[in-house]
Formats: sequence, structure tokens, C-alpha cells
Amino acid sequence: MKIASPVKGIVVEDLFWKKYKDIVADEVIPYQWKALNDELPDTEPSHAIENFRIAAGESSGDYYGTVFQDSDVAKWLETVAYSLRDHPNRELESQADEVIALLGRAQAADGYLNTYYLLKEPNKQWTNLRDNHELYCAGHLIEAAVAYYETTGKAELLNIAEKYVSLIDSVFGPEEGKLKGYPGHEEIELALVKLYEVTGKEPYLNLARYFIDERGRQPIYFIGEKERREQIQTEPSWNDDHHLNFGLGFAYQQAHLPVREQMEAVGHAVRAMYLYIAMADLAAKTGDAGLKQTCEKLWEDVTERKMYVTGGIGSAVNGEAFSCGHDLPNDSMYCETCASVGLAFWASRMLHLEPDCRYADVLERALYNGTISGMDLDGKRFFYVNPLEVNPFQACRKDQEHVAAERQKWFFCACCPPNLARMIASVEDHIYGQTEDTLYAHLYIAGTMKTFFQGNEVEIRQTHRYPWDGSIELRVDAAKAVDFDLALRIPGWCNNARVTINGETLKLDHLEKGYLHIRRTWSQDDTVSLELPMPVERLRSHSLVSMNQGQIALQRGPVVYCVEETDNGSNLAALRLPQESSLEIEYDEQLLNGIVKITAQGYRIQSSAALYSSDAPQRIPQSITAIPYYAWCNREKGEMRVWIHEI
Amino acid sequence: MKIASPVKGIVVEDLFWKKYKDIVADEVIPYQWKALNDELPDTEPSHAIENFRIAAGESSGDYYGTVFQDSDVAKWLETVAYSLRDHPNRELESQADEVIALLGRAQAADGYLNTYYLLKEPNKQWTNLRDNHELYCAGHLIEAAVAYYETTGKAELLNIAEKYVSLIDSVFGPEEGKLKGYPGHEEIELALVKLYEVTGKEPYLNLARYFIDERGRQPIYFIGEKERREQIQTEPSWNDDHHLNFGLGFAYQQAHLPVREQMEAVGHAVRAMYLYIAMADLAAKTGDAGLKQTCEKLWEDVTERKMYVTGGIGSAVNGEAFSCGHDLPNDSMYCETCASVGLAFWASRMLHLEPDCRYADVLERALYNGTISGMDLDGKRFFYVNPLEVNPFQACRKDQEHVAAERQKWFFCACCPPNLARMIASVEDHIYGQTEDTLYAHLYIAGTMKTFFQGNEVEIRQTHRYPWDGSIELRVDAAKAVDFDLALRIPGWCNNARVTINGETLKLDHLEKGYLHIRRTWSQDDTVSLELPMPVERLRSHSLVSMNQGQIALQRGPVVYCVEETDNGSNLAALRLPQESSLEIEYDEQLLNGIVKITAQGYRIQSSAALYSSDAPQRIPQSITAIPYYAWCNREKGEMRVWIHEI
Repeated sequence: MKIASPVKGIVVEDLFWKKYKDIVADEVIPYQWKALNDELPDTEPSHAIENFRIAAGESSGDYYGTVFQDSDVAKWLETVAYSLRDHPNRELESQADEVIALLGRAQAADGYLNTYYLLKEPNKQWTNLRDNHELYCAGHLIEAAVAYYETTGKAELLNIAEKYVSLIDSVFGPEEGKLKGYPGHEEIELALVKLYEVTGKEPYLNLARYFIDERGRQPIYFIGEKERREQIQTEPSWNDDHHLNFGLGFAYQQAHLPVREQMEAVGHAVRAMYLYIAMADLAAKTGDAGLKQTCEKLWEDVTERKMYVTGGIGSAVNGEAFSCGHDLPNDSMYCETCASVGLAFWASRMLHLEPDCRYADVLERALYNGTISGMDLDGKRFFYVNPLEVNPFQACRKDQEHVAAERQKWFFCACCPPNLARMIASVEDHIYGQTEDTLYAHLYIAGTMKTFFQGNEVEIRQTHRYPWDGSIELRVDAAKAVDFDLALRIPGWCNNARVTINGETLKLDHLEKGYLHIRRTWSQDDTVSLELPMPVERLRSHSLVSMNQGQIALQRGPVVYCVEETDNGSNLAALRLPQESSLEIEYDEQLLNGIVKITAQGYRIQSSAALYSSDAPQRIPQSITAIPYYAWCNREKGEMRVWIHEI
Repeated sequence: MKIASPVKGIVVEDLFWKKYKDIVADEVIPYQWKALNDELPDTEPSHAIENFRIAAGESSGDYYGTVFQDSDVAKWLETVAYSLRDHPNRELESQADEVIALLGRAQAADGYLNTYYLLKEPNKQWTNLRDNHELYCAGHLIEAAVAYYETTGKAELLNIAEKYVSLIDSVFGPEEGKLKGYPGHEEIELALVKLYEVTGKEPYLNLARYFIDERGRQPIYFIGEKERREQIQTEPSWNDDHHLNFGLGFAYQQAHLPVREQMEAVGHAVRAMYLYIAMADLAAKTGDAGLKQTCEKLWEDVTERKMYVTGGIGSAVNGEAFSCGHDLPNDSMYCETCASVGLAFWASRMLHLEPDCRYADVLERALYNGTISGMDLDGKRFFYVNPLEVNPFQACRKDQEHVAAERQKWFFCACCPPNLARMIASVEDHIYGQTEDTLYAHLYIAGTMKTFFQGNEVEIRQTHRYPWDGSIELRVDAAKAVDFDLALRIPGWCNNARVTINGETLKLDHLEKGYLHIRRTWSQDDTVSLELPMPVERLRSHSLVSMNQGQIALQRGPVVYCVEETDNGSNLAALRLPQESSLEIEYDEQLLNGIVKITAQGYRIQSSAALYSSDAPQRIPQSITAIPYYAWCNREKGEMRVWIHEI
């Protein structure tokens, strides 16, 4: 296995992502800080910081929040860490330092650090791995610690995390006398690989491997754990025996089978993503070809059978879970923001394992569509669930009760906003991958990167107006001439790419897994120009996706479009887009922070007044306007629809 | 108001309904008898007869079954009563007499007769009208009593019912000291009007009026009833306070508003139907124009906004209830058999109030489609829920868990099979309506009827092969010449009807509410011929029914069609029926007890292998075969679909 490690330390100068990164720095981080400190009016209190204060003995009161409330603080710290890279902010950094110090004071002498158990169920630690997210929260703490250390060089949080991990390692593992448990919500596995990466300490990798390999082995740990729990007094959890795991069995936690025997993506979608990321990471670190193959099987199942065109996953509200293949309802689905964020992360990890355009295509699909749709353009309101169709029936449908018709300020279960924020703040980490002799450009996000080949520094600067324009320039600058292979991704959505180097056209007839490899000696001011024509594509679903039959989705470049009531009137299901209509594009800088808008001449069906009639419906000519899906619901509340009837 | 009373005593000689009536007599009644007596292997026990035996002190043991188990016995007796009209059966009649005698022995001295309360909660009668179906069961008992009396002239069951009603009348009513309650599940109201009709006793009509008028008045009775219930020890009911009425409020029981202020059909669909029937009946008996108007408003709401093309109603599984207008999902709906039976009955009652083709059209739609789909062609298996689409995703969808992919032998909640049986056994009661001077032919069901005009007997004999053929002959035979107006319904689905009388063509340019009135002096052997051309119609939904956009349903005459996997292969959503394809029909006597089958040249979409692709899908020519919807799932289990994509 030839691992393409991510290239870090990139300065983003991108038309699209710079705005988002600024919003995270200027709006989301301060906003979430207020949320964590219960300073937001009219929203669900978080109590997350207060929980740590109480645990540190610096405040009094009871624990409040979900069992995974701690993770909101960790995700905030992780976001801050990424954001400080390109938005240095002394005040924010000292806020973070103070939080870290608080965490240190809250940490028990043995290293334990979970405020739910410290405050609400002392001495009941590790008795409900199935439901209570202890190892999950530990995982987020580790991720934050690694990120904060990498950005600031400060080790305090890393020390806290390592102390905690050392305790966890003494509790869990294959050795005699240790618990044979593993998390009910995966997360710590991938975090341990990160911790191993930054510390080089093998036990962390071994613990990650243990958690992955133990998962789903017979007898299922959670069964015995539940029996043991009956002998002690514990708080009831959300997961009652009456309707255990939403009727999905241990597939809900991907613990129905040993991980290497899992061939289908099942259960809670976010849990699945975090597991698959860890599996890919472990395969990359250990060269485990079998585990890589399992990842590939699961990838195929998710992306070829269970993924929305927006990069949304989890089509069933029951268990926030995967349904069966091709079952992709647009209105009653879940498509949790966190799940798409997880998919983006997984795609990026699969690219480390093997640079293949199909991973980058999905990464890009999630990044430009189903993840960022979770936040409004001001960074102040969030979707937990990302529907592909908001219809007039929602208010009267219990099966769509979970679908909010507009973004909310904050949630009691606030997993999504900070997850999205950390993705945006670190988006540049996904742009490049590097092996010994090859630099892969997976994403086109404008900015400057520096790396080394054979000890020589190479700078590459991307300039373009992507995703609105497909003209991309990469200027390679090597002070000393150096040989390496620049592998440019030719996106799967692009049919007629053109590439020139210093004005000379290259042949594109030999792509390797979707990458054009340019192997040469690079020196100063080498300029690669990439032309990715972006006609608007009419996407159709596989014929087994019954709910999308006869309908198309518009996509231009990586951006998936939708129609909104505010542009097109109500009852969007009555719109008809003729196959032969030309699809006009226009960049509108004023609209929705600057977007390319699509317009086309189409029709609106005017049926007879009867509920059922054999009269042919009339077609009333109407202009149809589509906007990027991610930007929906930033003007007026109303209907929205990704799939449009074609005639 | 000119009330068109039903004409009874018709001998059915119909190609279509005779078979069904024979099946009810030969299969369903004996089968349900076994069910009631727990003699069916591999099915849910009923215990319904045994409950009465225990109540009569003739057996021991505990009550078993739903709170409305008694009603299954009543519906069986009612069905037997109708069936004995044209299927005399001494053994069956004496079985029924024995059951009636048992009911008499089970009846308490004060007239009370409900085995749930007699056995399980003695002295708790009338403490949970909201949930426990006491008055509902009483209603079914009354309906059975009236029917049995009308067929056999035997008054024993009528006496039992009147004794019970006398008790109920002493408990409920506007008078001081009486409970101000009304049923949580309507039914007794319509039954009391029937009892009034057959006995002429005004108090029964008054009690019906009281129940109807009290319903939904402030303060809502069920609220105070619940508070009183907290003072006593009662069994918990299915309707827990945590999720009272499925979150629908008292709209669930149509008790959210006084009945006359209800302008929209809401809540549990079967409950709604039974209420609306009673309202129409009361309006007919009392000439209450305001109540008639309310019925008309509700009719419009149900049939123009909330009815499936099959005559199914109740599009939400939550509460087995109406959703909002035009919200008609084909796969997750409820469409309970009982609700369509109720719709048929209501339509018939609206025809009494005012002969109008729109009522008869819906009556016919329900009779030939969404009601009888509830039973297989052998009368041995039943659907509770009647989907319009059975797709491959059902097994993995919690929101479709209630949708069985094949008919079941019996149900724990066995309301539907006996309800359907009583409808079939009395189908002839809906054919004609008569005022002083007019005979309305609402339905074309072959057979012979006798009635009187001005004291002179008139016999009319319908002969035809309806619904497969639209050539209908009505022979009028009046021994003494008599003047009356024969009003023939020209079905709403028929565009080019032709009518001749004794060979002479009549003009059809002056229909009155869809009826052609032939006013003349009728004598012996007058022959009216009605030609109702039956091309296959391609029905489209109103453009607000978003789930049916771009799709058509095939209907020929009153029969709605569907496609099944067994004829068309799997993935029926991939079928495409071109607008210009000719739709061929063929009567096949061997197929599904004799049906007209529709075939057309169409296509099956073959998409690219990718989940999403801009490639144009291929069209593979394929013959498409459609069969009547009511006959689906009588061969192999598999996919089914009413709405077909049109190109």
C-alpha cells in the first residue's frame, strides 16, 4: 500500500471557502462559545462548560445535557485549533487555554474525564458503553488535543488526553482482567490513530486496533454488559429494552458482525462513518489489505446504493440510519449534517489509502452540498436534517416531523453545528495528498501550499474561481529544480477537461484512477492550466431509485442545485423541465453571497380542478430558477426540491 | 329535502357481485364462524364467542381480545342476516339463533351487554367512552339486530338491542343527571337511526341526535371523563396520556369542534365515516338542511382532496387518519378496508339525501376497488391496509411496517373482514333509490327488483356483463301501466353514453346531477338500453398530489387497474407507458375469476449502472400488463403499483 499522506499548512485564498472559513472564525466560533456558556437567548441551554466547572469543584449544581455534552466542548476546541492556523486570535487562544486548564482541573486523579459520569453517575463508569458515549467523548477530546497541539505546539490538552487514554488502555483490551468492551458510538478509534500519528506511541494504535477488531465478535459485549447492569443501580438510558436500538439489532452500532465481515453499510449513519474512517486509518497505518478491502466494499455500498445526490446519507429517521439499497426518499429521510461531514472525512481517508477519483468525487459532493447545507450563509442557524424536498405536507406528516422547514439556532443535541465548523475550519487538509514521489491534487481550492520533495521545497499556488468557474491555474514554484509527479484529479463530473503546462497541451487519454500524472522536473514558475468545462448536467438516478423516476437533478461542476418556492412559486412538484430546454447560467455576486444561478424555460402543470381526471393537463410556460442546494432556505421559508420532473 | 329511500329485496344475478356474494355465503361466513370460535389453526385467536359464554356463566376463564371484540360477533350476525336473503341456509340460521340466544343469556338484568366490561372491568361501565368502544359495540349489536329482524322477522335480537338501548338512553342525554358523553368511536348514532327506522320509536332518533350534537361541544367530555377516571381504578387503555390520540388532539375522534362546525375531514378515517353516515341519516330523517350542508362540505373535502383513486381513505398510519389535502402517499398510507367500506356506505347515504352522480361515482369507485381489494378471490385472506404501491423497500421501512405485502388469514384486530363481508352481502341495497315519483338507478348490478308506484307493482330487471361491458339492459315490467320517472345514472367516467327506450334514442343533453330522467307511462316489457362506452382512461391526479406527478392510473369503467411484478417483472417504477400507446383489452375468463386485462406496448428504463449519471437512460421495449387493482396479490407475492410513469 502506498499511502498518500495529507499535506498540511495550506493557506486558503479561495473565493468559496475563504468566506466559510471567515464565517466560522468570526461567527460560528464566538456563537458556539456563547452556546457552550449558556449565553444565547431563546435557545436550548448547553451547560457544557458549566458541567466541567462543577466537575472541577468550581461551581455547584447538577449535570445537564445529553450524555455526550462534553464532546461539544471538544469539538469547539478542535475547531478553534484549526481556525487559529489562518485566523490568529490571541483572545480566542487564551479562551481556549482557559478551557483546557478547566478540563485539567476537572480530570480525576486517575485520568478519567467525563462530566456525565463524574457528576451524575459516579462509580458507574464503563457500565453502559452501548448508549452512554463515554469512549465517544474521549475520542473527541483526543481529536481536539491533537489539533490544538499541532496548531499551537501547546501540549497541555495532549497531556490530559494521554492521561485519559492511559486509563482507558488499562481498562479495555484483550489482556486478562480487562473489559472486552468497545464503544456504542465509534469515534475513539479514529482519534487514537491520530494520537498515535502525533506521538508515535504504538499502544494507541494497538488500542484502536483492539476496539475495531473486538467489535461485533460473539458473544456481543453489549448483551453481557446489560446483564451486569441489572445488578447495579444506573440511570435509564435513551435506548430502552422495549425498543432496543430502534429495532435494528446491534447493526444499529455496526456491532452485529465482526467488522471485517461487514459487507453492507448498516445502522446509525454517523456511527458507521466514524467506524469506517478508523478502519481506513488503521489499514493505512498497518498496511492491512483485508481491512482495506472491507472499506472498499462498504464504500461501494454507501456511494453506489445509499447516498443522496447531495452527499447526504442515512435515509431512515428510525435510528438515523441507513435503509436498504436504493431506498432514498427525498422528504422523510434523515441526512444528518454530521453524517455527511463523516462521509467527507471518510472519503478523504480513502484517498490516503488509494488516490482514486471516485473518493475525491464523493468528498467534493459532500463538501459543496450536503454538509454546508447544514448551516446558513451567516453561520447562525443550522440544519440537523437535510431534506432534498420540503413539501406542503410536512406539517401534517408524522413521518416528516423530524424535518425542520428552516434552520434552527441551536439544538439540545448539538452535535451537528460544531462538527460542520471543524470540517470547514480544516477543509484545506483534504486538498492534497503526497507520496514519496507524487503530489496528488484532490480538490481545487485556491491557495498556497508548501511541501518538500527530496528535501527541496516546492510551493504550489492554485488560483481560480472554483466552483463557479472551471479555469484553474496551478503555479508550481521550486527554488531548486526537482522531480516529482503532479497528479491532477480530473473530476468525474467533467467530460472534456483540457490541461496545458506552460502553454503546451497535454494528452488526457491515460488517466490513472481519474488522475492525470505529470511527471517532470519542476522549477520556478511552471504553470499548469486546467480547463474543466462546466455545462449544467441533468443527473438521473439509477432506475431502482423509484422515488426519482422521471425526474432530474441539476448539477454544475460539483454543485448540486435545487428549486425554491421563493423563485418558482408553490407546488414545485408541478414544474416541468423539458429535455430540450437550454439551461442558462449567470453568476450573481449579490445573490446568496455570490452564486451561479441556473434558469430555464419550462412549464407548470395546470391540472383540471378534479382530484382525478382523464383530461390532459395544461402546460403553462414558466421560467424555472435553480440555486445551489447548499444555499437553500437563506431567503424565505418555503418549499424546496432537488429532483425536478422532466418532460 | 326529497329523500330517495333505498329499495330493498333485490335479487342479484350479477356476473361480478354474485360471485362475491356466493363467496361470502360459502366461505367467509363459515370461515369467520370458525374464527369467532377459535377453530382456525395458525391464526390469532378471537375468543369472541367464548367471551359471551363466560359472561353468560356457561364457561369460565378470562376475557380475551380487543375492547371491541363483541363487535365481531355482531358484524358476523349482520352479515348472516343479509346473506340469508339470497342464500337461505337453515343450519346457518339456527347457528345464528343460538348465538342470539347466548347474547340474551349474557345480557345483564339491566340490559347491559358488553363482555369486556362484564368480565374484565365490572362496575366500570361508561368510564372510558374515549377509548373503550362500549357504545361502538352497542351500535354494531343494533345494526345486527335490525338486519336480522328485517330478513327473518325474528325479534329476539331486536329485543336484546332495544333493552340495551333503553339502558343507554337512561344513562346518556341532555337531561339533568345523565352523562353528557358520546362515543369515542362513532357507530351507535347510525345504528340508532336504523333502529328508529325499523321500530318507529322517536327516542332512538333523539338519542342519535343527542350523540351527534353533543360531540365536540366545550368542555370536551373526554377531558372531564379522564379526570374522573383518575379517582377510580381502571385498566390502562391503548390511548396513553403520553401520546394521547396519536398527537392529533380530539380531532382524532372528530370531537375537536361541534359537529356542525366541522368543515374538514380529520382524524381516524373509520370513525369519521361512521359519524358522517349518521349525520347524513339524521339529516334525511329530520330534514335538517344545516346538517346536510355540513355533510356536503365534508364530502367535498374527502372526495376532492383526501381520497385515493381506489376509493381508499386515510393516508396517514399515525392514528389511521386523514392527513391534509392532497397528501396521498401510495406506499406509506393506511387505506384501511373498513374506511373504504365506510366511504361506500356514506356515499350511499348521501344518495338518499340527494341523488347526485358524484355520490354514486364514489360509491362505485369504493365498491369495485378499495373495498374488495381487502379480500382475496377465495374469501380466505384479508388486507387491513390497502396500499397503492408495494415496493422492494417495504421490508426496510419502519414507516411502511403496517403495510402487509400479502393478505393475512385473520387479525387480532379483526374489524375489516366482517365489515367487508357485510358490505358485500348487502351490496344490492345501494342499487336503487326511490322517491314518491322517481326511481333512481344508482348502480348497474344485474338482477331483479320489485317496487311500487301509486300502489302498482313495478319490476325492473337489469341484464349486462358490467363492469366488464357497458351494454346494459333494463326491462321494466308493470302489470298495470304506471307513471314514474326512471332516473338513470350516467357514470362520471363515461363520456359518450347512449340510451334507447324500446329502440328509440333519447337525448342526453339534459342530465340532472348526472341522471337521465325518463318520465313516462311504463307498462309491460319496456326496454331501456344503456350503452356506456368503456375505453381505458388514463387518469391523472390534481397537480397538488405531488407523489403522482408524471404518472397515470388506468381505469376502465369503474375499475381501477394496477401492474404487478408477476406480469411485468420487478422494479415497476422503471416502467414507462407512452402517451400514444394503444391500450388493448381482453376479457379472460380464466384469469383471476374472470377479468378484463389491459396490455400496452411500453418500455422499461435501463439506467446506467451508476447511482447518478447524466447519461440518458435506455428504453427497453416491454409489454405492460395491467389487472384490476382489487384482484392484486392473488397469484404471486411481489411488487404492485397503481400509478405508472407516462412518457
